[in-house]
Amino acid sequence: MSLDTAAVKPVERLSSVLAPDMEQVNLLIRERMASEHAPRIPEISAHLIEAGGKRLRPMLTLAAARMCGYEGPHHIHLAATVEFIHTATLLHDDVVDESDKRRGRPTANLLWDNKSSVLVGDYLFARSFQLMIETGSLKVLDILANASATIAEGEVLQLTAARNLATDESVYLKIVRGKTAALFSAATEVGGVVAGASDAQVRALFTYGDALGIAFQIADDLLDYGGASMQTGKNIGDDFRERKLTLPVIKAVARADAEERAFWVRTIEKGKQEDGDLEHALALLDRHGAMEAARADANVWTNRAKTALAAHPPSDLRDMLIELANYVVARIN
Amino acid sequence: MSLDTAAVKPVERLSSVLAPDMEQVNLLIRERMASEHAPRIPEISAHLIEAGGKRLRPMLTLAAARMCGYEGPHHIHLAATVEFIHTATLLHDDVVDESDKRRGRPTANLLWDNKSSVLVGDYLFARSFQLMIETGSLKVLDILANASATIAEGEVLQLTAARNLATDESVYLKIVRGKTAALFSAATEVGGVVAGASDAQVRALFTYGDALGIAFQIADDLLDYGGASMQTGKNIGDDFRERKLTLPVIKAVARADAEERAFWVRTIEKGKQEDGDLEHALALLDRHGAMEAARADANVWTNRAKTALAAHPPSDLRDMLIELANYVVARIN
Repeated sequence: MSLDTAAVKPVERLSSVLAPDMEQVNLLIRERMASEHAPRIPEISAHLIEAGGKRLRPMLTLAAARMCGYEGPHHIHLAATVEFIHTATLLHDDVVDESDKRRGRPTANLLWDNKSSVLVGDYLFARSFQLMIETGSLKVLDILANASATIAEGEVLQLTAARNLATDESVYLKIVRGKTAALFSAATEVGGVVAGASDAQVRALFTYGDALGIAFQIADDLLDYGGASMQTGKNIGDDFRERKLTLPVIKAVARADAEERAFWVRTIEKGKQEDGDLEHALALLDRHGAMEAARADANVWTNRAKTALAAHPPSDLRDMLIELANYVVARIN
Repeated sequence: MSLDTAAVKPVERLSSVLAPDMEQVNLLIRERMASEHAPRIPEISAHLIEAGGKRLRPMLTLAAARMCGYEGPHHIHLAATVEFIHTATLLHDDVVDESDKRRGRPTANLLWDNKSSVLVGDYLFARSFQLMIETGSLKVLDILANASATIAEGEVLQLTAARNLATDESVYLKIVRGKTAALFSAATEVGGVVAGASDAQVRALFTYGDALGIAFQIADDLLDYGGASMQTGKNIGDDFRERKLTLPVIKAVARADAEERAFWVRTIEKGKQEDGDLEHALALLDRHGAMEAARADANVWTNRAKTALAAHPPSDLRDMLIELANYVVARIN
């Protein structure tokens, strides 16, 4: 996920406005990732949590709660909860998605081992669970439990759909909700719930997070095929080489003739890639307007995110959340 | 864990008394392990859950709740929750503890892969979380969140303490609480909480489950060095060959002279085992009365479990729980 590094400007504005809250979140995270008995736990957790991510997900929770006028202490717990769930997911992803090793990032499973990544991930899930209980809100617990199930289900679906050309846009959407949007939408929704916002406003926050997450993931897919000239930390064609069925490819496959289909079967399903295949893949995406169509989808989701916020009265934080949504697609427009 | 198969008689008596409840638990488990989108989830879950385990942990929850006079529906949810947590733990253990592959059991990571075991484990954790929320009891959620953290922490501790001769009895106890006793004690405690039992009775149920789990684990350690002639499905010396620091070995190491210590360093820490080493290890355990001392510890924990139940009025279910505790150490006495 490169959003954390790519969306610098709007995240930095949010970051500066929410700095006092985020300070408390960081203190709570450091306190709760400790383990009296097993020092390996904070070592590994710190490797990820202190690695200088932009804390986007906890920021969404803080922003949503503050936008709804919250003055209590529990948005701090929820922001830390969301960061713990995210970190646990990353630890397990690093074990599952072996491709992370190839990008040269020193993942925890590389520095320690797979076993530690699995178990420390479990520990952080349990810790996140303890943190959210401290809010005393069953509604919040319900949202986060459902998000956890959606995340795990999406990951299993991704595993079984991988390199399978039968993966269509509806399966893609379920996978994207699992890997990205479910935690974004839970992060914003619980912010509204803890603030006691109206049902309509809570629903709007859910829709914002869900649509933001989907728009971001589609943008990420596009950037991998060179959808923009900005620096993203990704090499063009990584997804192709890793045989990922991202949205542009799914659209091109759906419109492929027999010969083109044979190309996708060979390169994605069978993984027999040769020199010049990436260029041919790009030509096929272009021929069928797959990049344009995916870009249009991302814009639809972005607009859905922004429109949802109309349920909330104007405010600086609302402007920043709108700006954040614009930024996600500015990278590809 | 061989308790599920070894403790046949008392578990079967409990099983028969609790059969109508357990029927509902099984229905709920089957319903909740389904996944509309990812069919691999119920396949893998069923591989473990339908494998004919004795359902000891959910039975402890049902027995505790019924013993406290509970007539509502939520002990069913909690029993299913406990079984889901147990199954998720087994899935992750199979990935972490590679030795399970050697015992010839077809684990999920063998039949599918490590990735699926990690992610389906996560899914079952999330599902367990949804189930327990349905009870609406924050107290119950608190107990199960704490148990989840203790389990994960104990597993990490076990990983870092493995093959380390500095592991003493206090570390051993923390590991055993994590791998066995935390879920036993949570299972019995939430049964009391959901039934609205008094604080003293809830504490007694916690103590019973905790002590039962510890006694069982010590008995399991003893059986691995041939502590009894009964069939347990384990080969004598498996733990020695896998270089596990179980209680008899920890006691013998604590009493070792320099030459004996060199033997343990070579066989356990360095893993350089030769023909005759198991026999020599058994002789050292015997020389220092390590088996006898561990057996005495198991009996102390069993008595603690039984004594705790004095906080509850006499009943058939109380008798069966006492009988279950006796059975755990009958295997080694």
